[in-house]
Amino acid sequence: MLVLGVDPGLATTGWALVDQERGKLRLLGAGCWRTPAEADHGTRLLQLWEAIGGMLQSSGPSSVAMERLFFSRNTSTAMAVSQARGVLVCAVAKARLPLHEYTPAEVKQSVTGSGSAGKLQVARMVRMILGAAVPVGPDDVTDACAVGICHQHASGLRGAVVGASRR
Amino acid sequence: MLVLGVDPGLATTGWALVDQERGKLRLLGAGCWRTPAEADHGTRLLQLWEAIGGMLQSSGPSSVAMERLFFSRNTSTAMAVSQARGVLVCAVAKARLPLHEYTPAEVKQSVTGSGSAGKLQVARMVRMILGAAVPVGPDDVTDACAVGICHQHASGLRGAVVGASRR
Repeated sequence: MLVLGVDPGLATTGWALVDQERGKLRLLGAGCWRTPAEADHGTRLLQLWEAIGGMLQSSGPSSVAMERLFFSRNTSTAMAVSQARGVLVCAVAKARLPLHEYTPAEVKQSVTGSGSAGKLQVARMVRMILGAAVPVGPDDVTDACAVGICHQHASGLRGAVVGASRR
Repeated sequence: MLVLGVDPGLATTGWALVDQERGKLRLLGAGCWRTPAEADHGTRLLQLWEAIGGMLQSSGPSSVAMERLFFSRNTSTAMAVSQARGVLVCAVAKARLPLHEYTPAEVKQSVTGSGSAGKLQVARMVRMILGAAVPVGPDDVTDACAVGICHQHASGLRGAVVGASRR
């Protein structure tokens, strides 16, 4: 099962293709989509729309995982992220793929075992789980990997529960 | 010059087609796009995407006018509106149309002559300017009409200034 993990932002959106085969997670690719600050708002959103649309078409994931929006103290940042997120969520719906959302605490808990883990701890565990393939770079890429791992773990768990209840 | 005025929202987005011919404003159509609260988020955003895309294609406005997002005390509402707005702005960019944004105070000032006018005053003036064609209904429709009028006024003013500077 291939999952596209996405960490939305207007300036930088992280993405990661996290695959699972026989219980083993593997990173097929990761990076970020950047939009130029000097471009107008609509152009930047359209670039995001086209970037995720192209990725969904070319890589064919079976689902997409994203962090739930959290309450931000910086409202203008929150609004910019929300607009980018709206476009990304819409593109996933247009591709008729299921979207799975997790809170930041759920992602941290799933990746590190602690819902209050710090950024460094998450980055270290992401690298331990997915290996050296994780690009050293912006947090957005690590966060996209983390939410992809989180969804793989959750799916595995759901699978196990269904399996157990069928016995 | 035909302008599509839009008042974005996840549940209800108001729209109004405000035309200008020889200085006279005329409403060619107005209404709202509603998305069902029981549908998932992505589906609702996709419905908005398709609604505005269809409207831009069928009615062929030369530009789109929208209120700038204002700072809301209710952050979860602001985030829902922002996501809807992101999708609408992206659709305008995809149609390669210019988007013009105005603050709520600019819209009120343009329509009523006062930047601090109340909702009722705005609604009354919208009806005076566009005539009885304005549907009696949700605020969203009146607000879409108001931002359309505001952009027509601003364009007329810009035209007059350009004309004067060319003399």
